[in-house]
Amino acid sequence: AAKSHIQLHGMQEGVTGLIRTSLDAKEFAYCPYSKFRVGAAVLTRDGKVFTGCNVENACHNLGICAERIAISKAVSEGYRDFKAIAIASDLSDQFISPCGGCRQFMREFGARWDVYMSKPDGSYVETTVDALLPQSFGPEDLQMKKVQRIPNEF
Amino acid sequence: AAKSHIQLHGMQEGVTGLIRTSLDAKEFAYCPYSKFRVGAAVLTRDGKVFTGCNVENACHNLGICAERIAISKAVSEGYRDFKAIAIASDLSDQFISPCGGCRQFMREFGARWDVYMSKPDGSYVETTVDALLPQSFGPEDLQMKKVQRIPNEF
Amino acid sequence: AAKSHIQLHGMQEGVTGLIRTSLDAKEFAYCPYSKFRVGAAVLTRDGKVFTGCNVENACHNLGICAERIAISKAVSEGYRDFKAIAIASDLSDQFISPCGGCRQFMREFGARWDVYMSKPDGSYVETTVDALLPQSFGPEDLQMKKVQRIPNEF
Amino acid sequence: AAKSHIQLHGMQEGVTGLIRTSLDAKEFAYCPYSKFRVGAAVLTRDGKVFTGCNVENACHNLGICAERIAISKAVSEGYRDFKAIAIASDLSDQFISPCGGCRQFMREFGARWDVYMSKPDGSYVETTVDALLPQSFGPEDLQMKKVQRIPNEF
Ligand SMILES: [Zn+2]
Ligand SMILES: [Zn+2]
Ligand SMILES: [Zn+2]
Ligand SMILES: [Zn+2]
Repeated sequence: AAKSHIQLHGMQEGVTGLIRTSLDAKEFAYCPYSKFRVGAAVLTRDGKVFTGCNVENACHNLGICAERIAISKAVSEGYRDFKAIAIASDLSDQFISPCGGCRQFMREFGARWDVYMSKPDGSYVETTVDALLPQSFGPEDLQMKKVQRIPNEF
Repeated sequence: AAKSHIQLHGMQEGVTGLIRTSLDAKEFAYCPYSKFRVGAAVLTRDGKVFTGCNVENACHNLGICAERIAISKAVSEGYRDFKAIAIASDLSDQFISPCGGCRQFMREFGARWDVYMSKPDGSYVETTVDALLPQSFGPEDLQMKKVQRIPNEF
Repeated sequence: AAKSHIQLHGMQEGVTGLIRTSLDAKEFAYCPYSKFRVGAAVLTRDGKVFTGCNVENACHNLGICAERIAISKAVSEGYRDFKAIAIASDLSDQFISPCGGCRQFMREFGARWDVYMSKPDGSYVETTVDALLPQSFGPEDLQMKKVQRIPNEF
Repeated sequence: AAKSHIQLHGMQEGVTGLIRTSLDAKEFAYCPYSKFRVGAAVLTRDGKVFTGCNVENACHNLGICAERIAISKAVSEGYRDFKAIAIASDLSDQFISPCGGCRQFMREFGARWDVYMSKPDGSYVETTVDALLPQSFGPEDLQMKKVQRIPNEF
């Protein structure tokens, strides 16, 4: 059966390379509404890198953030084990921070991996999914559910 | 013109009343897919309370969380200034925590207001939007944007 | 227990009243990003009307459309049986049409109810959920699922 | 700068190949909550194929559909011009139909391209974005907006 294979060439190692990759990914942003470009690059445990940019929609709430796209690309190719994600924007006076939706999306695949929030000059702040989403609610918590009664089923 | 008016009767004051209201709101949850009921009650600066429950969808990602619905109800009636939100679920072994999407939705209306995460017995943990979404990205930050170039406009 | 009760005053009967209500609802729109106001008013089988407006977010994809808020308000008060929804915007040269996400959200509660797409002058086009979302996928279809194997569970 | 390049090997031409690719893509679905696997494969005007599967989240509404991921992957690699998309699921008694959110997401990139809704045996129904989302609201329509006044800005 036909399959798509991703081949990464010349990926620079380390944080600097990952950030540079997220800055490059930003170039493909489709953001005619916000005109706010974001790029992301996620690094898997096996050293693969997947990139994403924001993809907006005329119905604004149907767009998707760069971070979620980068992670989804990895998952859709069979990778769910992540080491770090780098995020880039055009904000020069601020390290770009992921939205709450993206934090939760990252959290799905573990709370203990790194997040690099960068500026266009490549400088960055390092944090973790856990630090960005304290007291989070993840896949494990749904196992614990104790539903007492669900009277209004359809 | 026809308008809808919300009248709150017998709202108990204080945290206990807000949590009880969120527990009651949970009864209306439409959650045939997750069977995980959530209720929320948001208190405005002027003392009005708006409730919400989760409303799910056959396309799971089109559902809406209880917290976002409670806040949206308030906004759609002209209230955008919030003091606190209480959240309730059927989890008896855990204080129900808002998802990242809801934290960002709360953040839109300020970072310094209270969040009460409860258990079915009415016990709760108190925190703030700010504590739940550190290093957040809000409305103010978009003003700062310095877009360098947007080559791929439609 | 404390509960919120909605009291509708002077709701005009018929389509004209529902559209006027959706036009009024638009006034509360929180849309600092798109500056595109939308209002909605949903009529339940028992004659109750619930309104909504769009509520946007700095992270654009976390906003909620007016239609989904109006329906969620009804559901969160115990109403899931709908007769019609009216939608209003500031577009004077076009009848405002619901996005695909809202069509799916409507569809959850049945395919055979009416949608009135209006202009600011009160003129409108009448259609149905079914006509707006042909060959749709709803709650019933999930019952039919025949999952063969799910090898990649967590 | 480091970049990711997608190389497609042995992509079968025509509809049959695209559907087979969407069936293969389904294998990577991350759907611990719905256990409902979906795959998608989008074909660009230049003959590239990008695949997607559904990626779910503990907060159900933060998951992403297979179709939106396939399209986002293409956009994030610089492709926005689409010819067709194939969708696959495990439903043997029904041709899998895209949700309203995905229809709107497709619509962003044009109304006149093909959608193949398939069954696990490879049989399919052919339709178009336009037919699935009649009277749609797209990027062009936002240009027309005539905002009369936005009194409640932040
Ligand atoms: Zn985000
Ligand atoms: Zn939530
Ligand atoms: Zn909508
Ligand atoms: Zn979908």
